[in-house]
Amino acid sequence: MIYFDNSATTLIKPPEVGEAVAYAIHHFGNASRSFYDAAMTASREIYRTRVAIADLVGSEEPLNIAFTSSSTESLNLVIGGLVKQEDAVITTVTEHNSVLRPLYLKGCRLDFIDCDEDGVLQLDAFAELIRPETRFLICTHGSNVTGNITEVKKLYDLCQAHDLIMILDVSQTMGLIPVTGEMADVLCFTGHKGLFGPQGTGGIIVNGRLPFEIVKTGGAGVHSFEMFQDKDMPDLFEAGTLNSHSLYGLQKGVEFILSIGIDGIQSRENRLTQLFVDGIKEIKDLRLYGDFSGRDRLPVVSLNMGRIPADHLAGLLWEKYGIATRAGSHCAPLLHQRFGTMETGMVRFSFSYFNTEEEIEIGCRALKTIAEVYG
Amino acid sequence: MIYFDNSATTLIKPPEVGEAVAYAIHHFGNASRSFYDAAMTASREIYRTRVAIADLVGSEEPLNIAFTSSSTESLNLVIGGLVKQEDAVITTVTEHNSVLRPLYLKGCRLDFIDCDEDGVLQLDAFAELIRPETRFLICTHGSNVTGNITEVKKLYDLCQAHDLIMILDVSQTMGLIPVTGEMADVLCFTGHKGLFGPQGTGGIIVNGRLPFEIVKTGGAGVHSFEMFQDKDMPDLFEAGTLNSHSLYGLQKGVEFILSIGIDGIQSRENRLTQLFVDGIKEIKDLRLYGDFSGRDRLPVVSLNMGRIPADHLAGLLWEKYGIATRAGSHCAPLLHQRFGTMETGMVRFSFSYFNTEEEIEIGCRALKTIAEVYG
Repeated sequence: MIYFDNSATTLIKPPEVGEAVAYAIHHFGNASRSFYDAAMTASREIYRTRVAIADLVGSEEPLNIAFTSSSTESLNLVIGGLVKQEDAVITTVTEHNSVLRPLYLKGCRLDFIDCDEDGVLQLDAFAELIRPETRFLICTHGSNVTGNITEVKKLYDLCQAHDLIMILDVSQTMGLIPVTGEMADVLCFTGHKGLFGPQGTGGIIVNGRLPFEIVKTGGAGVHSFEMFQDKDMPDLFEAGTLNSHSLYGLQKGVEFILSIGIDGIQSRENRLTQLFVDGIKEIKDLRLYGDFSGRDRLPVVSLNMGRIPADHLAGLLWEKYGIATRAGSHCAPLLHQRFGTMETGMVRFSFSYFNTEEEIEIGCRALKTIAEVYG
Repeated sequence: MIYFDNSATTLIKPPEVGEAVAYAIHHFGNASRSFYDAAMTASREIYRTRVAIADLVGSEEPLNIAFTSSSTESLNLVIGGLVKQEDAVITTVTEHNSVLRPLYLKGCRLDFIDCDEDGVLQLDAFAELIRPETRFLICTHGSNVTGNITEVKKLYDLCQAHDLIMILDVSQTMGLIPVTGEMADVLCFTGHKGLFGPQGTGGIIVNGRLPFEIVKTGGAGVHSFEMFQDKDMPDLFEAGTLNSHSLYGLQKGVEFILSIGIDGIQSRENRLTQLFVDGIKEIKDLRLYGDFSGRDRLPVVSLNMGRIPADHLAGLLWEKYGIATRAGSHCAPLLHQRFGTMETGMVRFSFSYFNTEEEIEIGCRALKTIAEVYG
């Protein structure tokens, strides 16, 4: 198999990730629950995972990082705990359903930053979208469809100028490009994509004190006689037994990234992406979705070829060449509406540090052959 | 180490659990997201985990089992999605904070079934607690402090007679004693205790259609153009990437239980518990908390010895004998209030199928020696 579906989950991970989780399952106790070695080890290794992530995002406070089971849970907790129905929220047409649906559920007023035909957000319209009741900007750091990277600095400056809280979804960017804890007021991340961790891991990074309501609660191993969950980070979001087993694996994934350096990861992925784009650009009737003008981007290329339905193209790639891609709408409905691809979908290629130039070349040849035979 | 803290997490698990998770981390794609082998394998193995659990609880509908990251999350989702602030809810003084705190957060009226001096729930008072606005009974199937097992059949009959929805917390019982999907309207379970699965796994078993509100939402890999989460089981509770890695480990844990048979598990644990109780009953000033009259119980024994503080006793057991127990209040504040042990706590011994008679004998000798030296 040639695995080009890294935006869905990174299947090829450093070997120490699985080894760590298997070890933890048979050696870790329940963290924060007692003082014997196995319980202490679980607590300590969870803390070390916080430290590794703090190192990655340039934060000096590991305890501002709370762990959840996924970026989806993170976004549900953050949106559920901060946004009120009477608030207005600015978001974008490039969002994943993990952002959109918690907002729809809240029933708050939504104003959308639109994008151009390359999927680039039109940030100049931002100020016009602000209403008296606007309190939040919630947006993705990088699109899981186009691979475009959002101009976060510009947006956060605008948010601070207008006293808005900015919540950033870094599901597609953390581990792939530089992400710092100071990019926004809140960052929601997943463990199983760019960070090379196991599924079932994710988290929330909070800067400063924000007016969170408690939205998840339960046992904490401490303060058992209090009726309500502690509102300090990270306890605010960490009710119940923490997943020390998988968090130990996540630690190894993040440490792998730290050992290479984010620049090394990014430059390799950029090279692979450029090789791919160069290798397919001559294909007739090829349509790429995204900004390929040379700006920094994620290693994600979504495309259609002529009238070949996207699911058919992905099927051919898999059945004839053993190439795993992702056809469909990638849980980003508004962007597909914008591109007019609701019916057809797209085929997404998403690369990782562990892909090789040879794999990219095989992928390019496969697309060319399919274009000749079926186009 | 002699591990007697299985109510917190089962540290000794069948070896295939860790092996399975390590394999899955390096071979599974993102379930329900595409049709190439690695993604299909993840989907299939998640389904097989549903089937294994359905087998364990005697259910013919694996899709009535939704997966979550913990019993705490399950209880938050179920209480959050069903109970309204204007409802009255009956619960018990034996509950864990994972039940109590979501109820406190909801702000609904709570009526508590009290217990006697052995922690046995006084079910005869049940009917008196029902108000016109009472809609739910939420209770634990087995106490994590006393090891007492709740008379669920009697309670569910009462609930059905009074048209109440019964939500059962089986965190301490599933995998240890018979649990069936028909014991209540909703069951909330964890994977990392009696089921021998990894941390980060849990679930919800629902019988029939209940009026759930959506409380967690996001991408689902299907129906991407709908604004709201599907309300059918199991999609209602499964937003975002499912933790296929750890669920594959949970499958192996449950299959281990099925291979032994729940009766075999229960009888071994009963034998170990009885051996322990018989071995320590002569200790002077020993106080056991729970019903030891001969009724079925969980392999849990909480105790105090004379005036030795509980955390000191647990400390001595660990430092001098390498015995891991749990001192404190076990996240069950009302029961400790009832027993007058808020300040002192208790030391909890909780056994598993993987403990041995020799370990039990060492534990008994340790307690006797400590009683002689420090009592």
